[in-house]
Amino acid sequence: MPFSQQFMDNPKADRVKRVASLRQASVRRRLGLFLVEGPQAVREAVAYMPERVHDVYIDTSHNPHDDIISSALEAANPIYLHHVSTKVMEAISPDAQSIAAVVSSEGLIRTLDDIDLNPLNTEFSEIGSTSSDNPEKNYQPQTDLIVACWQARDPGNEGTLIRTADASGCRAIILVDDSAHPLNPKVVRSSAGSLFHIPVIQASTEEFFAWAEKHSLPIWAADIHGTQEHAPYDLVTVLADRNSGLVKPAATPIMLFGNEARGLPTEIVERAGRAVMIPLYGSAESLNLAMSGAVMMYSIAMAQHQG
Amino acid sequence: MPFSQQFMDNPKADRVKRVASLRQASVRRRLGLFLVEGPQAVREAVAYMPERVHDVYIDTSHNPHDDIISSALEAANPIYLHHVSTKVMEAISPDAQSIAAVVSSEGLIRTLDDIDLNPLNTEFSEIGSTSSDNPEKNYQPQTDLIVACWQARDPGNEGTLIRTADASGCRAIILVDDSAHPLNPKVVRSSAGSLFHIPVIQASTEEFFAWAEKHSLPIWAADIHGTQEHAPYDLVTVLADRNSGLVKPAATPIMLFGNEARGLPTEIVERAGRAVMIPLYGSAESLNLAMSGAVMMYSIAMAQHQG
Repeated sequence: MPFSQQFMDNPKADRVKRVASLRQASVRRRLGLFLVEGPQAVREAVAYMPERVHDVYIDTSHNPHDDIISSALEAANPIYLHHVSTKVMEAISPDAQSIAAVVSSEGLIRTLDDIDLNPLNTEFSEIGSTSSDNPEKNYQPQTDLIVACWQARDPGNEGTLIRTADASGCRAIILVDDSAHPLNPKVVRSSAGSLFHIPVIQASTEEFFAWAEKHSLPIWAADIHGTQEHAPYDLVTVLADRNSGLVKPAATPIMLFGNEARGLPTEIVERAGRAVMIPLYGSAESLNLAMSGAVMMYSIAMAQHQG
Repeated sequence: MPFSQQFMDNPKADRVKRVASLRQASVRRRLGLFLVEGPQAVREAVAYMPERVHDVYIDTSHNPHDDIISSALEAANPIYLHHVSTKVMEAISPDAQSIAAVVSSEGLIRTLDDIDLNPLNTEFSEIGSTSSDNPEKNYQPQTDLIVACWQARDPGNEGTLIRTADASGCRAIILVDDSAHPLNPKVVRSSAGSLFHIPVIQASTEEFFAWAEKHSLPIWAADIHGTQEHAPYDLVTVLADRNSGLVKPAATPIMLFGNEARGLPTEIVERAGRAVMIPLYGSAESLNLAMSGAVMMYSIAMAQHQG
């Protein structure tokens, strides 16, 4: 039975220290493992990628987490469940909300060539449906859009963008250049499990533009400035045109977001070739990155689904 | 000249302690003052409500903040500018990013009866236009929508909702029941100055429903469950109907959001009478409160502006 009989109550035990050390990037890289904290993220890891989950640590004094435990017990490969004391859980992570998992990172973050560019198969579109044969492949994109963010540095923002890209049914999310690492615990936590649904890709700036060009995918820069030659399109106008490249795409469009503090540099907007901006109706100067992402992705998804 | 000649470099000075103590709710209440941190929020306070700003504390070793200084010097009433050392700034607030202001709270948070329900005056709609005669009244709503949140507890979420309500041009935002206090420094900071633009109201649950009923304003609960009698409307469907109550309102609609962890209780959704939900296209279980707010407010604003 994949259930550790021993109750772990020593916060200074070697195993506890080892798990806690996964909060460091260097340890994660060396061991090929990462830490998943909190019920939402652990539940999705167990449900979508059970074969990646090595161990789950649970402090049941705060929350029984029965649904996660039963899913873990039913997984094809054994997931080891460890009951731990509150002190042990605190030593593992102060942000775990009484449950954490150690998960294999090998191959989880994909490359550009892994992105499926075939026409969307909306027949297979039952939300949340799972295929037990191939649990890693059950994400069904519903919206013909790829999201990319360039130098997103704040892990909370980046995790939220991953969650929104998933909720809005995008094909994939690409983290371009020096963005926050997607296996940083705060990214994982704020993605609320979406990291285990939607394909997440890392790429350099050059790789990103070369790949988009190779597949003739139009890049739209989310930017209020545009370039000297190209003023930004207004999102409302682009979406009102039912034949526009964001509503009825001939090729999958990519929406590229910039850094939370500085946005996109002009040369990147120029390479993208077209910019689109969210109108500001009140007196606010701007929206933050996570808000802009939500507005852009969802308004495009809804426009495509409205048909 | 409203400029303190003395450089403040003693982090233990009484004045520094007094300013820092404004991080406590009880001190804010007693003194009728609150702390505004960071360049974006201070800039908007000085630009929109100069007569409320008592003192501005600046650590120019990190950032000259010339634009804020010159606006403060040009204000009709003197704003006292104090140059301070980095250590003093840290003692005032670790989150100030080298600039903070002490601002009067008297009457800043309004009541329900202050909400302007007259038809939108879109002729006066120049964004960012200011009337120097009456600088407190230069927010011009552009979208016929009022936002309300019920028991929003996370200050960062609440501040972001205030910012989004402003950006999307809503009439006002109502904090219902036991929501985070709008003058909590984290709310002020994450509102990025929008607290000084859009009217922010506090009201009890009973006051809120009584006021909406008195003015016959329809309340839409942002909720994926609805009630036994009323399944939630799909946002896409409601917005596709160009004559719906959210796109061409006969009376200003109110969009009511619930608590970030628990949503809205059924009895509140029932009192609202109608619910609307954001479709989930991918595998994510939900969006967080700030994301839902951005998607709802902006999709309604854009639908109204698309006409």
